[in-house]
Amino acid sequence: MNRSELFEQIKKKNSYLCVGLDTDLEKIPEHLRSEGDPIFEFNKQIIDATSDYCVAYKPNIAFYEALGPRGWESLQKTLDYIPNNCFTIADAKRGDIGNTSALYAKAFFNQMNFDSITVAPYMGEDSIKPFLKFKDKWVILLAHTSNPGSADFQLTESKITGRKLYEEVIIKSQQWGTPDQLMYVVGATRADKIAEIRSLAPEYFFLVPGIGAQGGDLEEVSKHGMNKQCGLLVNSARAIIYASSGKDFAAMAGKEAMKVRNEMDQLLQNNL
Amino acid sequence: MNRSELFEQIKKKNSYLCVGLDTDLEKIPEHLRSEGDPIFEFNKQIIDATSDYCVAYKPNIAFYEALGPRGWESLQKTLDYIPNNCFTIADAKRGDIGNTSALYAKAFFNQMNFDSITVAPYMGEDSIKPFLKFKDKWVILLAHTSNPGSADFQLTESKITGRKLYEEVIIKSQQWGTPDQLMYVVGATRADKIAEIRSLAPEYFFLVPGIGAQGGDLEEVSKHGMNKQCGLLVNSARAIIYASSGKDFAAMAGKEAMKVRNEMDQLLQNNL
Repeated sequence: MNRSELFEQIKKKNSYLCVGLDTDLEKIPEHLRSEGDPIFEFNKQIIDATSDYCVAYKPNIAFYEALGPRGWESLQKTLDYIPNNCFTIADAKRGDIGNTSALYAKAFFNQMNFDSITVAPYMGEDSIKPFLKFKDKWVILLAHTSNPGSADFQLTESKITGRKLYEEVIIKSQQWGTPDQLMYVVGATRADKIAEIRSLAPEYFFLVPGIGAQGGDLEEVSKHGMNKQCGLLVNSARAIIYASSGKDFAAMAGKEAMKVRNEMDQLLQNNL
Repeated sequence: MNRSELFEQIKKKNSYLCVGLDTDLEKIPEHLRSEGDPIFEFNKQIIDATSDYCVAYKPNIAFYEALGPRGWESLQKTLDYIPNNCFTIADAKRGDIGNTSALYAKAFFNQMNFDSITVAPYMGEDSIKPFLKFKDKWVILLAHTSNPGSADFQLTESKITGRKLYEEVIIKSQQWGTPDQLMYVVGATRADKIAEIRSLAPEYFFLVPGIGAQGGDLEEVSKHGMNKQCGLLVNSARAIIYASSGKDFAAMAGKEAMKVRNEMDQLLQNNL
């Protein structure tokens, strides 16, 4: 999916919600556990219930990888089930030397047909570029993450430029990828910083985790982070997919997603 | 495997060689491609031919992941086949928020039973700590990698401490993990730096990629990097596993591994 198609979906659905498929065998409703593929069955019903209200799905790859080969099968089935009008994000945080990153790109873009993958910047340009060689596929580069440990290295200021590491990442990586192929992960728990980060990368989409269970504030993030093409994908996982642990889990997930969408609809009207 | 067991193996085999299992369907000998599981068949023969000369194996996870679920099966079979007296490294370069890192740890340490995993430091302490909770399991943290892009961010000097990012990573992370559970990735293409890095972390093991195809110098690395318990695992992948593309591939891999082991034997005598 390319940028104008993504923006079309945002306008059509009045939503920039990404639903995080952090699907955990221990957290899905009891009655699904006897299914042949409980993870896929859960995802399928979540997707059916939420796809009118979100523009993207983000499976957290660790949850599938932890299940071994059958986890990868559940992931592939999930990906195949996601409607074509939804943007798909492999939240994998990969990144390695060039020939290895090329293989990860092949795995996620060709083998599994994801639209995008999250990538860690530590190894620099040649670890990221192989992902940028695929038409209409995206790198979502970690910039300022929302976890406590983000302060350990991401906030280190450079002696030469005075910029923090995450700012260096954003500035330097714009030489490697255009706003049509590169996005940034920008944590929502620091909404005050989002305006600053937006000024560093006006045209680029930001993937914002941390709404919901991680405690970000949607209105603040949207006010400070939106650009003319929305420029935001805001992720919510646990608050939506585990809205209920009963047989009504899908209906409740849909209701929760609709609630977020309705708030986003308003915020799009105010800010676009 | 714990540190004293690893050092015992190094002394017993007179080797600190790690064989990188970067096994690529397109590069393995023709005659194996008709096997039911050519990747495992190749690895099996490589392991048989090299396990007397090396102390560790490092499957590069991207190569397996790129093959989908059957790649994970080949990986598991390979891991199960590696003799118990060899240290195993999942070269996966993972790293995510705490609960997600915990799942990656579960996948690689419990599900697959690797001794260690490579982890990227960008997300900081809480992305690394979940891997450090497993007894006799190891984190191998990216510090100074050997690829060209390592200069992009790893060499950035801090305004406050004057230290480069990779130095910050090494110093800060020693508060999180002891030399019994934490190692560092230190690229061999900068052998002049290894002495400096050794002074920052005297007791810790370094995993040194870049010997062989990436062009490091074993003697230099060993002279400057060794500590009293050797403290080095030096990886070679392509130069060993693709020493021949014919039916003699395993024999030639064994010969190549033995050559490196013999050099290491000498270097251990000179430096230990």
